[in-house]
Order: sequence, then C-alpha cells, then structure tokens
Amino acid sequence: MARSGRRPGDSGARERIAAGAREAFGELGFDGATIRGIAARAGVDPALVHHYFGTKQRLFLTVMSLPFDAAALQAQLLAPGRDGVGERLVRFFVGLWDEQPGARTILTGIVRSAMTGPDAAILLRDFLGRQGLFRLVAAIAPDQPEFRAVLVGSHLIGLAMARYIVGLEPLASANAEEVIAAMGPAIERYLTGELAGNTPR
Amino acid sequence: MARSGRRPGDSGARERIAAGAREAFGELGFDGATIRGIAARAGVDPALVHHYFGTKQRLFLTVMSLPFDAAALQAQLLAPGRDGVGERLVRFFVGLWDEQPGARTILTGIVRSAMTGPDAAILLRDFLGRQGLFRLVAAIAPDQPEFRAVLVGSHLIGLAMARYIVGLEPLASANAEEVIAAMGPAIERYLTGELAGNTPR
Repeated sequence: MARSGRRPGDSGARERIAAGAREAFGELGFDGATIRGIAARAGVDPALVHHYFGTKQRLFLTVMSLPFDAAALQAQLLAPGRDGVGERLVRFFVGLWDEQPGARTILTGIVRSAMTGPDAAILLRDFLGRQGLFRLVAAIAPDQPEFRAVLVGSHLIGLAMARYIVGLEPLASANAEEVIAAMGPAIERYLTGELAGNTPR
Repeated sequence: MARSGRRPGDSGARERIAAGAREAFGELGFDGATIRGIAARAGVDPALVHHYFGTKQRLFLTVMSLPFDAAALQAQLLAPGRDGVGERLVRFFVGLWDEQPGARTILTGIVRSAMTGPDAAILLRDFLGRQGLFRLVAAIAPDQPEFRAVLVGSHLIGLAMARYIVGLEPLASANAEEVIAAMGPAIERYLTGELAGNTPR
C-alpha cells in the first residue's frame, strides 16, 4: 500500500506521514526505519515523504519533538525560585511520559535511535539542544551548564529506559510521586549543587 | 566461513564462540544477533554453538557477564563502612568501563539488547539479579532494596549510554574523577538515604 490514490496535496498526508514516522522510529529506531516503510504506514508515495520532510534525518528531527514549549517550561520551573527545581523538572517529565502515549512513543524512538547508528550522537545532541535542555540548565546554573545538562539528561534517559522502555520493576509501576520524591533531589543537585565534591580534579 | 574445518572438540572453540557472541550482541543487540552469524564470527558450525551454549537466550546470559565478582565487590565497597559507598560504587564501574574494552563491549550489548525485543526486560532483570546488584543493595539498605537497586541501575545505565554508547559531550570525555565526584552523592543517596522526601506517598 505504498500508493493510496490520495492526491499529493492531501491536507492530512503531512500529519499521517509524521505519525507513521513516529511509529516507525519508535518501533525500529532511526537506522531500522525506512522512508519506504514510513510512506507505506501513511498510505502515500515515498516521494511525498521527501517532498514534505527532506531526508530521513530531517524527518526525524522534525517529527520527534516532545510536545512542550521549552521557554514556557523554564518559566514554570523557575517561577517559585530555584528551591525544588529538580523535583519540578522530574514531575514535569514523569507527568508527560506517564500521561501522554504520544510523548512515550517519541521518547522511545529517540532512545532506541540513539543506541544505534553513526548519527545517533548528533541526533541526540541536536535533540537536547533544540528542546532547550541546555538553555534551561544554563538559566538555572551558569557554571558548567553543559556538564549539568548531560548529567540530568542521562539520568532522565536512564529513568525512561527502566520505567517506559524495558519496564524494570519496581520502578515501572511505582507511583509517580514515589519516583518524583526519589529522583528530585538528585536532579536538584545536578542543577544547582556543587558537583566537584572533595575529590581532587 | 561457517565451517572452518576445526574439530568440534577444539579447545579454543568455546572461547571463540563467546567472543563472537559478545561482538554480535554488542553491535546488533539481542534480537539482531543470530546463532548463524555468531558461528561465522567464531569460524564454527552453528550446531557447535547450540552444543556449548543451548539457546540464544542462554548464550546471551552466559557470555554477557561483567568481569567482576559480586561478593568481592560487596566486601570492597562496604569494608570502609557505609559512608562514601556511592562514590566507591561509581568509581568501580567507571574504572571498569573506562579501562576495559571487553567490559564496554558487554555493557553496550546489554544496553542495546535491552532496548529491543520482547525478552529485553527478562534479560536485563536477570542480569541485574545475577550480577548481584540487588543483593549488594540489600546488604547496604534493607528497606526497599529493589527500588534502590533499580534507581542505581537506571542511573548507571544512563551514564553508560551517554559516556560510552552515544558519546554525549562533555560527559563522554570528562575526567573519571569529575564523573565520580558528580555522580557519587546521587548514588549514595539512592543506596543509603531517605527516598520518600516530603512528598506525600
């Protein structure tokens, strides 16, 4: 079903391609997904995928955006001050991933893709950058914002892997509040604390 | 080169199969690796792989053991007392993965495999259990040892993903001491601290 007979200008085609791409990247990762397979899921000609989205890499970067506004999130996290910002950040992401299947699909696609293929690091770095995690962290902690952002990001991705992708118990079915209470202080320290400790550098 | 002419009882065959399996699982993940492909890497007949290791799942569980003794590690971590146990645990794993390419190959194979395929959760859970992480954590913190172990494990896997698999900077090329100083207190709290915080449960 690579061709559905729908005309190229079909107003729903772009969104169907985006949805098919999210599914394919989620199930197969970046390297496993193909433009042809994505076109088949969307019921369009592969040429239409290229027409709307360009290369597979551009398609990935375009459709795999988590559904939130980084600037609004930053304002929301910092409005009550720096205290508790770690807990608020964990609460935001656990809420997003627990409650929105679409956000879980995107998350899974990003993590699976990042584990395979030579473009993985570029894609993930671009993703973290575009999603404003670096900017967000820099607004909270001007020293070492990139190191802090990667510590936060890698812990969140570890959580995502255990809770949503692999389903490691008891983390997978733990109450959201338990997860937030457990992880919040660790994330808070990565965002606002002293990282060098007493260890010689 | 599925058959090499070596006789089945070849004393090096078992180790060559194990090495080929580690490579294949590391590059392709559990689902992508095949007994046939592993046999080809080892230069043996696929039947010999089954003879020595049984099913692909048993092969995976047998060859993907991190090269350390869980009981010895537990003694080493706890000998100086509970204080600093988090830093010592991070120091052990960062040292293992930074310094031993074979340990990195196994780590990559486990993480890649865990991201794909229906047996992923079972394999990873079994791995964590066999490697003694649950037992180790229970020896340190009798309350909620499984929750603590999964928090520690998911943070370590997040680190592994960022530092060794994807290569996210600046974490990928950070000095080991910087990583240990940054992560040690977070792991220490997961092992010995109060996890429930002030959040209602």
